[in-house]
Amino acid sequence: MDISHLLTSHAINMQASLVRELLHYSQQPDILSLAGGLPDEKLMPAYPALAQLTDSRQYGASEGEKGLREVIVRLVADRGLHTTLDNILVTNGSQQGLDIISRLTLDESSTILTEQPTYLAACQVFKLQGANIQGVPSDSEGMSVLALRNAIENTNPKAVYLIPNFQNPTGHCYSLKRRQDIAALLDEKGILLIEDDPYRDLCYEKVDLTPITTLLKRAPWLYMGSFSKVLWPGLRTGYVVSCAEFSPHLVKIKQAIDLHTNRLGQNMIAAFVASEMFPAHIVKLQQSYKEKRDAMSKALVAELGEMVEFNTPAGGMFFWLTLPDGVSSKHIMTDALEENVLVLPGIPFFPNRHSQDDAFLRLSFARLSLEEMQRAIHILSNVIRRRMT
Amino acid sequence: MDISHLLTSHAINMQASLVRELLHYSQQPDILSLAGGLPDEKLMPAYPALAQLTDSRQYGASEGEKGLREVIVRLVADRGLHTTLDNILVTNGSQQGLDIISRLTLDESSTILTEQPTYLAACQVFKLQGANIQGVPSDSEGMSVLALRNAIENTNPKAVYLIPNFQNPTGHCYSLKRRQDIAALLDEKGILLIEDDPYRDLCYEKVDLTPITTLLKRAPWLYMGSFSKVLWPGLRTGYVVSCAEFSPHLVKIKQAIDLHTNRLGQNMIAAFVASEMFPAHIVKLQQSYKEKRDAMSKALVAELGEMVEFNTPAGGMFFWLTLPDGVSSKHIMTDALEENVLVLPGIPFFPNRHSQDDAFLRLSFARLSLEEMQRAIHILSNVIRRRMT
Repeated sequence: MDISHLLTSHAINMQASLVRELLHYSQQPDILSLAGGLPDEKLMPAYPALAQLTDSRQYGASEGEKGLREVIVRLVADRGLHTTLDNILVTNGSQQGLDIISRLTLDESSTILTEQPTYLAACQVFKLQGANIQGVPSDSEGMSVLALRNAIENTNPKAVYLIPNFQNPTGHCYSLKRRQDIAALLDEKGILLIEDDPYRDLCYEKVDLTPITTLLKRAPWLYMGSFSKVLWPGLRTGYVVSCAEFSPHLVKIKQAIDLHTNRLGQNMIAAFVASEMFPAHIVKLQQSYKEKRDAMSKALVAELGEMVEFNTPAGGMFFWLTLPDGVSSKHIMTDALEENVLVLPGIPFFPNRHSQDDAFLRLSFARLSLEEMQRAIHILSNVIRRRMT
Repeated sequence: MDISHLLTSHAINMQASLVRELLHYSQQPDILSLAGGLPDEKLMPAYPALAQLTDSRQYGASEGEKGLREVIVRLVADRGLHTTLDNILVTNGSQQGLDIISRLTLDESSTILTEQPTYLAACQVFKLQGANIQGVPSDSEGMSVLALRNAIENTNPKAVYLIPNFQNPTGHCYSLKRRQDIAALLDEKGILLIEDDPYRDLCYEKVDLTPITTLLKRAPWLYMGSFSKVLWPGLRTGYVVSCAEFSPHLVKIKQAIDLHTNRLGQNMIAAFVASEMFPAHIVKLQQSYKEKRDAMSKALVAELGEMVEFNTPAGGMFFWLTLPDGVSSKHIMTDALEENVLVLPGIPFFPNRHSQDDAFLRLSFARLSLEEMQRAIHILSNVIRRRMT
């Protein structure tokens, strides 16, 4: 049966995420995966006992559980973002936050500016709305302010989408100066900021993490957070904080698309985050991931030396590796998979084609043990070496 | 700050659901609510113990937990719908099923045919995609086949959306003959059937519940089910069964919009439905709701007699009341609310304006105790009487 006439043009154009496709491989027992964005399940706490939670069996509020929204108000206040319950929407992970924001603001007539490269699953939802995505170049301190100004003036965008802290895939972290300059530019131009901040708690160095949102004076904004990197991604719980004008519109879309987020998950997260266990848990995550990050950095230097380029990220889960001249990331992926090591080419993270988009690998240090990581990087280095000859 | 230039035209046109707005009232302690679509929480079982469930903390599969999809394959096979794991997508309630289907098939160029009146939250997601909704008249056996044929020939629709069993809001249940005739017409015309079946287990009479989907020979179809009416709506878990051609497209959209449904909720539902407790639980629901339905029927006859028209529904949760000539449902809602009884006017359930759309009330018998229901209907009858004079 041919159903193509029944699909919308945006649906037909959708690609399955390469990352999610590769997850099938990563779940095979023999595979050493550096590819996924999965946190280490060994670091996930047990769920709170059901008996200590509010009854969550009945339908609930579209905006989310009051108890969880209170927790989120306090969490973001600690980041300098002072808001009220009414401006918090609980979502099924920040992925759904991206989708709700896209449905509210983007259509075929819209351009959205992003970092280049950027989080590929954000591009998926932007494209599902038919939006035009325009990548803007970055340097080591974040998105280039000059390039952003040019892009705003040339494309008349609806919004700018940024992941300033420990970005997926590059691991970059914006300098305070860059945050300030971007905020000033967005204020000047009145452009909507969509700030995505899922990695901030996975921080291994003293770096500035001021939300750009808090530096804005006039421009509208939407700020997204997630519990998936620090607690239980299987519970699919994140949030959007919005300037007040957006809040009722966001709730209406949430109501229309799935009524509300699973209440049991919300209550579990509220209970854990409000407990004295949470700060200690974050410290434990930071220590463990820092150790893994340092091990990967050391292994890369030891095994690959000058052959590849990378910056050691100050937080998050990812190294972004530039391969030697002429070596294709797709070839490396295929070769490595034959030796049971899974790596992710950088290509899908580029919203626009880029002359060098086949030159990068994203390597996650979150999930393998130190010993497995050592082994995986050793195999990867042999694969890269072979392709260089 | 004016943000209207940032919103899409579909988002601007969205109305908050009247039903959800009224929920705020229904949660006040003194209110007797006949308005909501909430099941009786007193009939909801306790959650299964966490210790007996698979670990669900890590990210999971976009299509849903394998254990739950196996359970769903067996459930729908009992209804005559024989399918495989690959054609089951777990969603955040069937509301998200509607949304995913809408995003896959509907855009500004699409017409979708529905019952008139129909489930209002379905219309919300159809409209969010910009689709044109065309209501088709029904008689006591279901949607009129002649009217459906005319609508197909006149509007060239993408799909027909039907709730054949104990529909929200009218409570109608299609005859087998009508199901067969509609299936034959859809086969003849090759029109996509979207069949929504959340109420089938709340069945109080011997009636035919054959999914129209199972009667199709050639037409494409999508079939939706829900656990919200029989188990725990707060866990937001439903499903879409699809003919094979649609399945990979549905999963890609699910992946893009929120990666996957909360895994803990899925595992709880799979555990309960697979246990010997489930059939006994369904029998208990049916007995309890049948008793409430009979009590409401009796109270309506006793208090309002010939003044109103209604059919006693063979299942589901709702009576659909036709008010006396010239009495406005909006006035009744306002008057009744002053006496702490909440009822829902039929207006929002009409996708197209209808000359008599202010003549109906939807009354839910699911949630009040027998004594409260008696009291609420008594107050409602006084309110109606007063408006007749």
